[in-house]
Amino acid sequence: MQINGLLGELIQALCCLPGVGPKSAQRMAFHLLQRDRQGAGNLARCLLEAVDKLQQCSVCRTLTEEKICAICASPSRDQSLLCIVENPADVWIVDQATFFAGVYFVLHGRLSPLDDIGPEELGLELLEQRFASGDVKEAVLATNSTVEGEATAHFIAELAHRHRVKASRIAHGVPMGGELEFIDSGTLAHAFNGRTDL
Amino acid sequence: MQINGLLGELIQALCCLPGVGPKSAQRMAFHLLQRDRQGAGNLARCLLEAVDKLQQCSVCRTLTEEKICAICASPSRDQSLLCIVENPADVWIVDQATFFAGVYFVLHGRLSPLDDIGPEELGLELLEQRFASGDVKEAVLATNSTVEGEATAHFIAELAHRHRVKASRIAHGVPMGGELEFIDSGTLAHAFNGRTDL
Repeated sequence: MQINGLLGELIQALCCLPGVGPKSAQRMAFHLLQRDRQGAGNLARCLLEAVDKLQQCSVCRTLTEEKICAICASPSRDQSLLCIVENPADVWIVDQATFFAGVYFVLHGRLSPLDDIGPEELGLELLEQRFASGDVKEAVLATNSTVEGEATAHFIAELAHRHRVKASRIAHGVPMGGELEFIDSGTLAHAFNGRTDL
Repeated sequence: MQINGLLGELIQALCCLPGVGPKSAQRMAFHLLQRDRQGAGNLARCLLEAVDKLQQCSVCRTLTEEKICAICASPSRDQSLLCIVENPADVWIVDQATFFAGVYFVLHGRLSPLDDIGPEELGLELLEQRFASGDVKEAVLATNSTVEGEATAHFIAELAHRHRVKASRIAHGVPMGGELEFIDSGTLAHAFNGRTDL
């Protein structure tokens, strides 16, 4: 006997969450209905409001409920320092972990011709306008360290150079606390190439 | 910098799901907003409807959108065979795994004096009425095999005996496919005590 009706629909709807399969969805559904109906109602309200109101910032393309996001609108941010990341999540990750005081630009992906993701999908036109305006002095490329991420970084670096904007790439190397024994050779080679004076 | 606004609220709301901490909640929120807004809207709708309409069946206390659940209302079910389980989820688990063709009674917990869960919270009054009515011939006790689950089973068995209803407990023993080497001694002792003729 299958779980039908509203309960079945709820379990199927919960499967849209990343990392949640039918078994966890079933557990979540029963937990919410038996022990946290208030939380479930609150979650529904937040989902509806977020889907309705969160849109891309017209300047940096991160997710925001305003027309221009809090970071782009902040007068204390250095508008000449531009960090380019793949996802809105990366904005928060970089901002929480570093002392970076510039602004961001979100690509919402990376160049991937096989998946039909080209410069247009990444909003590179908007980015180029910003380079052309002369307001940006340095573009910090913080795309992921995957093959596509690297290719995207190089593509954008060329774009920046064309407009005489300095482009830099975040360092690759041994993670803090990492032991050489457990580091892959590619990372170790990068760490040697990128060594700094002490 | 913290994630504020609607996005922060959504992340916090997602934390009400079991097994979801702030990191997974963040990943889920960004996934839904970037890649599956339709799924998010659908999830919100299902949550609201489920919280609004799913209530306890007036006969067996499982979750249902009707007054009486499909199992209790089914004419093909043997009403004299009553399986007693701790949670609504257990109803589906037993029904999917076994050929049990009777009906269920859901306790929504187990006896646990320290947590203030007594016979009243488990609806044992309703259960006793059913025993007293004379319609039930056998009560199959399928509470979990924990200390509280066992205690609850014994408590209900006494209740059944008082109304001359036969009470049985699901078997404890070696799981199918299990190797003796890896079975704990308590389970193995149970398996020997409960041996059946071949």
